[in-house]
This record gives sequence, structure tokens and C-alpha cells, in this order.
Amino acid sequence: MTGVIDRALLDFWLWDWLDAGALLTRAQYGGHDRGGVNAMLDTAARLADSHFLDHWKTSDREEPRLENGQVRVLPAVKRALATYAEAGFAAASFAPAHGGLGLPSLICTAITSQFMAANIATASYAMLTAGNAALLTHFGNEAQVNCFALPQIEGRWTGTMCLSEPQAGSSLGDITTRAVPDGEDHLGPRYRLTGNKMWISGGDHDAAENIVHLVLAKIPGVDEKLIAGPKGISIFIVPKYRPDAGGNPGARNDIAVAGLNHKMGFRGTSNCLLNFGETGGALGWRVGDEGQGLAVMFHMMNGARIGVGLGAGALGYRGYRLALDYARTRTQGRAPGAGTNGGQVPIIEHADIRRMLLAAKSYTEGALALSLWCARLEDEERSAETAAARAQATAWLGLLTPVAKTWPSEYGLAANDIAIQIHGGYGYTRDFDVEQLYRDNRLNPIHEGTTGIQALDLLGRKLLRDEGAVMDQFFAHITTRITGHALAPQAETLRRAMADFRTALAGADTPAGQAVILGNATPMLWAFGHIVMGFIWLDLAGAARKQEKEFAQGQIATAIYFCAYEIPKISAWLSPVIAGVSLPVEMKSTWF
Amino acid sequence: MTGVIDRALLDFWLWDWLDAGALLTRAQYGGHDRGGVNAMLDTAARLADSHFLDHWKTSDREEPRLENGQVRVLPAVKRALATYAEAGFAAASFAPAHGGLGLPSLICTAITSQFMAANIATASYAMLTAGNAALLTHFGNEAQVNCFALPQIEGRWTGTMCLSEPQAGSSLGDITTRAVPDGEDHLGPRYRLTGNKMWISGGDHDAAENIVHLVLAKIPGVDEKLIAGPKGISIFIVPKYRPDAGGNPGARNDIAVAGLNHKMGFRGTSNCLLNFGETGGALGWRVGDEGQGLAVMFHMMNGARIGVGLGAGALGYRGYRLALDYARTRTQGRAPGAGTNGGQVPIIEHADIRRMLLAAKSYTEGALALSLWCARLEDEERSAETAAARAQATAWLGLLTPVAKTWPSEYGLAANDIAIQIHGGYGYTRDFDVEQLYRDNRLNPIHEGTTGIQALDLLGRKLLRDEGAVMDQFFAHITTRITGHALAPQAETLRRAMADFRTALAGADTPAGQAVILGNATPMLWAFGHIVMGFIWLDLAGAARKQEKEFAQGQIATAIYFCAYEIPKISAWLSPVIAGVSLPVEMKSTWF
Repeated sequence: MTGVIDRALLDFWLWDWLDAGALLTRAQYGGHDRGGVNAMLDTAARLADSHFLDHWKTSDREEPRLENGQVRVLPAVKRALATYAEAGFAAASFAPAHGGLGLPSLICTAITSQFMAANIATASYAMLTAGNAALLTHFGNEAQVNCFALPQIEGRWTGTMCLSEPQAGSSLGDITTRAVPDGEDHLGPRYRLTGNKMWISGGDHDAAENIVHLVLAKIPGVDEKLIAGPKGISIFIVPKYRPDAGGNPGARNDIAVAGLNHKMGFRGTSNCLLNFGETGGALGWRVGDEGQGLAVMFHMMNGARIGVGLGAGALGYRGYRLALDYARTRTQGRAPGAGTNGGQVPIIEHADIRRMLLAAKSYTEGALALSLWCARLEDEERSAETAAARAQATAWLGLLTPVAKTWPSEYGLAANDIAIQIHGGYGYTRDFDVEQLYRDNRLNPIHEGTTGIQALDLLGRKLLRDEGAVMDQFFAHITTRITGHALAPQAETLRRAMADFRTALAGADTPAGQAVILGNATPMLWAFGHIVMGFIWLDLAGAARKQEKEFAQGQIATAIYFCAYEIPKISAWLSPVIAGVSLPVEMKSTWF
Repeated sequence: MTGVIDRALLDFWLWDWLDAGALLTRAQYGGHDRGGVNAMLDTAARLADSHFLDHWKTSDREEPRLENGQVRVLPAVKRALATYAEAGFAAASFAPAHGGLGLPSLICTAITSQFMAANIATASYAMLTAGNAALLTHFGNEAQVNCFALPQIEGRWTGTMCLSEPQAGSSLGDITTRAVPDGEDHLGPRYRLTGNKMWISGGDHDAAENIVHLVLAKIPGVDEKLIAGPKGISIFIVPKYRPDAGGNPGARNDIAVAGLNHKMGFRGTSNCLLNFGETGGALGWRVGDEGQGLAVMFHMMNGARIGVGLGAGALGYRGYRLALDYARTRTQGRAPGAGTNGGQVPIIEHADIRRMLLAAKSYTEGALALSLWCARLEDEERSAETAAARAQATAWLGLLTPVAKTWPSEYGLAANDIAIQIHGGYGYTRDFDVEQLYRDNRLNPIHEGTTGIQALDLLGRKLLRDEGAVMDQFFAHITTRITGHALAPQAETLRRAMADFRTALAGADTPAGQAVILGNATPMLWAFGHIVMGFIWLDLAGAARKQEKEFAQGQIATAIYFCAYEIPKISAWLSPVIAGVSLPVEMKSTWF
């Protein structure tokens, strides 16, 4: 099965590297044991292969289409989501009180990776739904949870996030969707919403009974004006069908599908322009307090960003595995010096193919390991014994989230690029899978905050706000872990890279220096990301020593690859920062 | 017109940087003056826009299709090629003796870049045809030239190169297509060909009266066996329709279209699996001597490789210009510290967008400048006064060809990636052009020899064979040119990079060191490519000082960008080579 993540690798990460066993001993996750979790992982791999991978290519060729105001998707999508829910996966991450299984985030993330690897477009409906329901269980009132979250946890309804508008994508403070008060009922304060929402994944489809939109909008003041900037934003539940007295989908709400976006890849996920309130206002209920919309949404957005990274790593990983299979079987050329007699050799015998496979392995296994580590930190944040440990998990998660979003997105895509290259001309054809993986994955550096936005988050909100205090803690942790590492020269390259990063960041001590650093936020993010990944690979190589010999050799070789070929790039990225180059700030539009 | 290359930029490269004026004073190109050339460049830009760009998106949606053994393409392709020929472009590069215009390669390359930028898929039919006819005028006998080259130069027929077979792509020595002697006629020694040819661009279509295939095949010995390896290869003219007594397309030859490849991009160019000799053998005539097939083909292949780079640079450039236009008009967010009141600013006001545009400008303008420089060297090879100058041009062209093929392919694509990123979600939709440019361009690192193959060419055939003698000359030339450069610190970074490259290459003095270098041939190619590009940017910045102020500022800023952000990557790529890391050689297949 090359549609899913290798099980031995998942087991290594979960049980050996991240010690999921220790998690299962905590009261919070006490209902589960390793055997049960393994059975779920087996089921996930099986269903991903049988019900998600099966229509991955079809859903690329036969895109969602708009018919009389209703978006139609392949029947296979509905079947896949139903099967997924029946097996309990829709409920996996939720508390038993909400009908969930109460599994650790680490396990849920491992499960999710299988479905994303097999068919990210179909899996996305489930991911968005889980995020939506999680927000509601966290911030909604009891009636809202019962009415809107539980049907999603049961897998009968799906959910969306409606943030962007045509004129406001990254700049959410500029949204103009209005929510006008319309009294209150048993579901809470009620509003009528009018406005246009863009890029709504899963915004309409016919694979579920109902769709729960979580919509950012602004409540006008008494002067009918909207408060400028993010402060004015609140968040609302706006269902496609209004629930009737029994909680079932009733009358259609005032939401029109104004159009579908036709994407380069990721086509199976419908992506809509939704018009709210064309005929009087879409009915919605506020979640949380007025003006708290962005804070509420970002609570879930962090999870969504880690989820994007997970998907990007999974797509990259599948490309890597396909390329590995191809390289082991496709014969072409001969070993150096072998002459022209005798048969051709599998292309994996060529050093340049192995160099590319090493890169792809380091990018994709590293990316998935990073996602799982973040999930482990989420569990730590919820279940660690001491407040200090929980606070540290929160801080590190904040630091790692922009990396967990961007690094897999950029390097998963790079691995997909390598996978095409290893396939040669065949990889460029639609008869093989790797070109679609590349197209699918190209979305990931864009949605849920572009790489540039993540870089500003890392620099502006994380590193500069506390003058690097959390980073210092984090680097100290890395230093402790790599001290005495068997790969001593490699550990030394990482130590030097951390020192260089500190040097670059220290330039922010002056206002001019700070402008240089913010103007170079993306290269700084790249450098920080590679430091994180260098640590992960050294840590994996250390943990692998007790594993089966060839597996261990592979982990160690990949760590050596990463330190020899990738870590040196950190100096290159930091070089203009340390030199104080402010060209991105000073460049004039008219000079281009 | 964002479908074509900016004319002021082309003029700067041609007349100021590469001194095309001096070329036109040479006897070989004496029939042309600057006014005439400018008129042709104007016409090229106009026709590229009106007859090539017009069906670029349609030809992506409506791919070539196979109907009863005949490939059908859009009628617009036929119209475009006819208009191109009527304007004289099909004949531009050929000698007047063959009905050509005898224009320098430099001018032809500038003209070609316009058509490639507008519609690379349609332009490719013309490029392949020119390459085919050039091979025939160089190596064919008079009858072959008259019968097969002239109709191509007149733009009535098209041409292909048939090299690869399903089991032999990069490894041409392993082809098994057979050519059995069948007497001799007025066109030369005649053969019957049987075999399967894969990846034949323009292999069939209905946009021309006839198609001239140039086919690599092996002539069996008396024992009926084929000679192993490249030595056994000869080259044959195999037309789709056999010429009748009057030289017009007559009976259909024994060539069947066994299938069409369905590509990720570049879809307008039909790409065929051709079966030769399903019913007795396709009639063909040998060009040149027995066993000289690869030598003859490679004479043209070098031009084809530079042509691939040119197309890649042109696609990248168009993406860059579209992104620039978008960044200047799309408003989103606010300047740092501006608060949330007031309107949003064009995204070019954000430093990270400018950083990306600087990268894209350096990649794409640099790539096109490199292609034009190579064309200038082709002219030098043909028309320089002294034998020493001609020999030096040949040597430098040999050194630069792998760079001219790969650097634009990798970095043109990187610019297309940036163009999507700057467009955000819009760039990922098919409503905008940048996603198709990205898909189209992804072919270029693959065809006409992958990046890995080019790297082995640079290292094995160019740098190591003469122990770096040509490189030393070339680096000495660079050093002379950058000595006393106004951008002194930037020139110094390039000087250091050249020194590092020499250090890395010196490791090849031992057999073990040579294995390390060949195992790291691709990072070496990357490093060498960036050195070439660093020189080009310093040279462009120097030449730009006399230009209009804002244009000059742009060239200088881009040179500074390249030296500050890109040159430092050279150390990173060379780092494992200098450290003697032989992991790509030692890694085992079973460790992955």
C-alpha cells in the first residue's frame, strides 16, 4: 500500500520516539491501551486505502460542480465520510461527554495522516468538520453544542470556517460581512448576516445532511458603522439548513453559492464563494462574546495550521514512497565504469537518485515527525501533571506552529517535485500519481496563512515579543538533548546554527535592526525551521539505535544527510540578515 | 502585454549588454541593420500576442486527441504556425542559400523568447522544426536538404527528434529500434525501420502538410545483432508521408501513433508513442555515416538544451511580470505601524512581497540573459575573426550548456512558484495564468536530459576531463570583468565563491575524491550555475549604469539581491563536497 504511511515508521514515532505509551497511562486517556490504539491505526490504514485512495484520481478529473445552486460531489466522497464516521474516526478526538473516544491528539494525528496521504481532498471535509465541532465544544453554549457540534461528531453533518472575503484574505480586520441583531432564542443571541465569503472549503456539497458554517462578521454599532480592524470581529454559527424543532435540517438558510473556484489541485474539496443574506439575511447565532471572533477562531486556527502541515507532509511522503518504489524497479543506465554490456540497473543504483531520495526522506519523514511532535505537545498542554509543564508545552507549541505549518508545506512540495524528477517523463504524465500529489500539495503554502504570514507570526508575535525568552528555553532543550550524541560532528553543526540564529536575532536590538529582521522574516523562518528539523533528525537517529538494523541505518543516514546538506543552508539564509541587508524594505515598486 | 518580454529589457540586453550592433557589422550578418532587426522584434511581440497567447489556455483545456490514428490539435495552432512562417520567422536562423534570413542566433533567440513566453506549447512545434531542419542542412546530402529541410524552412512541414524508447530514455545506448538496409535511391542509403519511440513531441498532429522524423536506430550486423551501446546508433530521416516524385507528401509511411501522453502541463504540444514498422518497416534514409547517429544528434541537442532553458526562462519571466502587476494593484493589509484605519495598501508595499519579486526578477531576467549570452557565443563560434576566439566560444558554450539548460529550468520554475504565492489563493485557481505557467514549466527540468544528466555532463565531460582548464579561463574572464566593479563588496562575494568552487573541484585529484564529486554532481552544478548567474548580474548592473535611472536602479538592486541572498547558497551546496561526504554513493537501497 503506497497510499498510506508505513506502519513500522508510525509505530517508531508513536511508541518509541514520542512515548505514546506514557500518555495512555494518564487519567485523561485512561480508556485506551496500546492494543486498542493499534487496532484503530490498522483500521485507518485499511479504510484510507479502500475508501479514500479509491477515488483520489477521479475526484481530480471530475471536480465538484454547481447545479441549480447546489454543489454536487462524487458519491464516493459521501461513502468515504460515512465509513470514516462509522469506524469512529469522526469522534476520535472528542471527549466521551460529547460522544467522543477521547483519544490523545497524537493518536488522532497519526490516524489522520493516513487519510490525508490517501486522499487529502476527501479527508479535508472530515478535518474541517472536526475543527468546527472542536471550536463549538470549547466556546459554544450547551444548546449550540447539542444542536451543531454533536451531529458533526456523529459524522452526519460537516463544518466549515468562513473567514476570507474577496477584499480581505490575509487581512481579516477588513472584513465587511455584517451581523445585525435579531433577538435571542434557545440557541443564544441571534443575528441576520449579510456579506460575501471567499475560499470556503467544503462551503457546499451533497455529502452530508447539513453544513455548519462558522462565520466571522462584524456587528454594526448604533451609528450602523462597523468597527475598523480585528477588534470588531465576532463569530457566528450559520447553518446551511436551519434546525427544526427536533434539531433536524429544516428550512434552507439565506446562503447562496455564488461560484466555485477551479483549482490547480486539491480539486475534490469544493471551494466556494458564498453569499450570505441575498434575501434578507442569513440566520446565525453568536458564539462567545462580541468582538471575540478572532480570538475564538485562532484557538482553532492553530490546530488547522498544524493540520495543513500534516497534510503537506503526508502528500510529500506518499510521493517519496512512490519515487522509492519506482527507483527500485525502473532500470536505466549502468553503474559507473560498468561499460555498455550487461543489463541496465535499477535507477536507485545511481548516486544522484539516492541523493534525491535522501532529501525526500528527510523532508517528508521529518515533516510528519514534526506534526506528531506538535500533537504530542497538544496532549502535554492538556494532560501534563504540572502547570509548568503545561505552560511550557503551550509556549513551545506557539513557537513551533508557524514552522509546523510552513516547513512541511514547503518541503513536502519539494519532495513531490523530487518524486516527479525521479520518475522522469513518466512523472510528468497523469498516468502516474506524482504529478497530482505535486498539484494537490501546492495549496498548502497558501491556505490558513501564507508562508509570509507565518514568518511574521514567528518573528513578530513569538520571537521578538518576549525577546527570545521561549526560544532560549527551546534551544537549551535542544542543546541538552544533543549533548553526547553519537553523531557528534553533526550535533556540532546544529549547535553552530543555533548560535548563528541568535546572532541574527540580536540585530533586532535597534529599531533599524528590527526593520531589517522583519523585512527578512521569511529567511529567518526558513532558518529556524531547519534548526527544528536538524534537531528532530538527530533525535530520531538517537531513538532509532535500538531498532531493527536496516531501519536504524536509514534513520542515521538521513540525519547525516540533513546535517551535511541542509543545515549549511541556514548560514546562507541568515547571511543577509546578519549583514543587515534591508533591500526588501528599500526596494521601490518602480525599480522592478 | 504581459504575454511577452518587455521590449526595453530586450533592447538593453541585445544592444547594450551583448552588443548586437557589433555582430551586424560582420560579413556573415551583413544583410541586416538595427532598424530591420527592431522591426522583426516588434512583429514577433505582436504576433506572439495575437496568434500564440490567444489559444494558450484553450490548448491546455482541449488537449491534442487521437482520432482513427491521426492526432488532432486546435485549428489555432495551424493558424499560429502559418502566420509565424509568413512573417519569416521559420526561416530566420537559416542561411540565405537555404531560403533563410541569415539572422544571428542572438536575434533569433530574442525573437523566439517572445513566442515561448506567449505559448510555449505552440512555439515548440516551430522550435523542433528549426532544430530538425538545421541538422539536415548541416549533415544531410543535397537531395535530403531539398526534399526535407526546405519545406520546414518554408514553414509547410514540421519536424521531430525521435530518441527515447520506453526502455531507453536517458540511456540512449540501449535503444532497440532496427534499421534494415533497403538499397539506395536519390535521397541516399535507404532503410526499413521497426521499433517504438516514446515521448515524441509533435510526433503527430494535423497542423502541417507533413512531419519529418529524425530517428535514432541501430543497423543490425551480419549476425542480425545490434551493436551494444551508443556506438551502434545511426540517424535516419523517416517522414510521416513519403515524398512523391514531385517532393509532395505522398503515401503514408509505416508509422502508427500508438498513444498520446497526457501531461501535467505543456499540453498543447502533442506527445506521442510512435510505432515504426508495424506492417513491414517504415521507410527512412540515413543521414551521415553509420554509427554517427549520436554525434550528429548531439550537435543539435546542445541547441535544443539551450532552447529548453530559454523557454523555461520565458515562462518564469511571464509569471514574474504577472505577479508584479498583481502586487502593484491588489490591496491587502497595511504598512507596518499604520494601524487599522485608512485603506489597504497594494501588496507590493510589504517587504516580503518585494523580497519575492526581487528573487523572481533575478531568476527570470538572469535566466533570459544567460540564454541570450549563449546565443551570442554561438554567433561568436560561427563568425568571430580569429580561430582562437571561435575556439574559446566553443569551449565556453560547452561549459555553459548544462547551466543554460538547468538553471533557467529550476529557477524559472521557482519564479513561477513565487508568482503563485504572490497571487495567494487566486494564483492557485485556473482563472489566473500563473498556475498553468507553473505546470508548463515543470517539464523543463526533465526533457532533453534531466538536471542530473546535465550535472554529469558538466562534471564528467567538461570540468574533470580537462582538469578544469576551460573553467580556469572562464573564471579568469569573470575576475577581470568584476575587478574594479562599483559593487565591490558584492564582487568580492563572487570571487570567494569561485575560490570555494575550485577548492571543491580540487578534491577530484584522488579516485576517492572523484567518486565524491561525481556523487555530488548536482550540488556542484547548482554551485557553478549560481557563480555564472552572479557574474551575469554584476555584469548587467555594470552595463545598466548608463540606462534610464529607475531601470538602472532595478538592475543594480537585483545584482545586490543576488549577491546577498543567493551567492551564500553556494557555500551550502559545496559544503558536503568539500567535507568529502559520500553518502549518496554509500547509501543502501534497503536503508530507505
